[in-house]
Amino acid sequence: MELGVLYSGGKDSTLAAALLDGFYDVTLVTVSFGITDDWTHAKAAAESLSYPFETIELDESVAEDAVETMLDDGYPRNGIQAVHTSALEAIAEQEFDAIADGTRRDDRVPSVSRAQAQSIEDRHDVDYVSPLSGFGRSAVDRLVAANFEVTAGPSEAIPRADYEAELRALLADRHGSAAVTDVFPDHEQTYVSGAEK
Amino acid sequence: MELGVLYSGGKDSTLAAALLDGFYDVTLVTVSFGITDDWTHAKAAAESLSYPFETIELDESVAEDAVETMLDDGYPRNGIQAVHTSALEAIAEQEFDAIADGTRRDDRVPSVSRAQAQSIEDRHDVDYVSPLSGFGRSAVDRLVAANFEVTAGPSEAIPRADYEAELRALLADRHGSAAVTDVFPDHEQTYVSGAEK
Repeated sequence: MELGVLYSGGKDSTLAAALLDGFYDVTLVTVSFGITDDWTHAKAAAESLSYPFETIELDESVAEDAVETMLDDGYPRNGIQAVHTSALEAIAEQEFDAIADGTRRDDRVPSVSRAQAQSIEDRHDVDYVSPLSGFGRSAVDRLVAANFEVTAGPSEAIPRADYEAELRALLADRHGSAAVTDVFPDHEQTYVSGAEK
Repeated sequence: MELGVLYSGGKDSTLAAALLDGFYDVTLVTVSFGITDDWTHAKAAAESLSYPFETIELDESVAEDAVETMLDDGYPRNGIQAVHTSALEAIAEQEFDAIADGTRRDDRVPSVSRAQAQSIEDRHDVDYVSPLSGFGRSAVDRLVAANFEVTAGPSEAIPRADYEAELRALLADRHGSAAVTDVFPDHEQTYVSGAEK
């Protein structure tokens, strides 16, 4: 069965792919808006892990809408969630038997409710699986440390390819760099930089 | 890392164990009240899959309380949930680094909330993972069909070793067989009967 994993190069989506690897033919899929080339970091991680890799370009209007939502809100949650939903819908439209993402038990965003999951499955005739939604942070951290080489640091310094980098760039372009620090609190992100141990 | 998987011999807990097998040293653990020998069905399934197998005997008072709850309610949900919680607590007290069960995204019972999961982890210094909580029924069915030999049929006919068989026996012993059909609606269960494909 062909599985498309929504992939950022971060530890969560990397571990999600590894958990499913023995059960599906895994392809890592990164979405991009064509705003920056941050998607190439996900490609590099995918290559270091020897997974097939694809990109899907989402319409820039999705990013424009998300940035306006984040600016209005003063925090990124709802904008990120909207982009994640659009990304799942886009990957569900591809020729996969199943799709997956790396959402964890304690993620507030992105999160996919049971009803949203069922809706994606019904409308696209695809299975949606989120293998880490039953894993807490410490379980994920221990499994990642045991299985992958990981780089960690603040979001701005990590070459990761989730939507955040492109949304930050668009926000800076439209509203200046002060808007980025207003909307995004400091937080740590991680990037899988090496082959499987 | 040593992982104890709460195991019934059914397809959900079997698939949960298989998903985690590459990442942990898996032991399948079945709880019993010593009322019937239904736990031997789980042992047979574990042996066919070549996993280490252990049993934990829970105090019969847990079963007695569950049976009275189910009889008062007229349905089994709360009684089953209470036994599942007791079983997780018991396995968390063993010498495992992590524990797991086979709860699925669409299970109404047993279900373990995010807060309950965190509480188990904090009190027992153990990771609790439920790898199928991000899988719907169709994804589980497809993966099980592709990977295991499965027997399916009504609950009474399937030699499975979840708590239900012992709770049914205790209910029949205390309140007669009519009480069993009152409390338990007809439903299908499955049992993994053969080695990994």
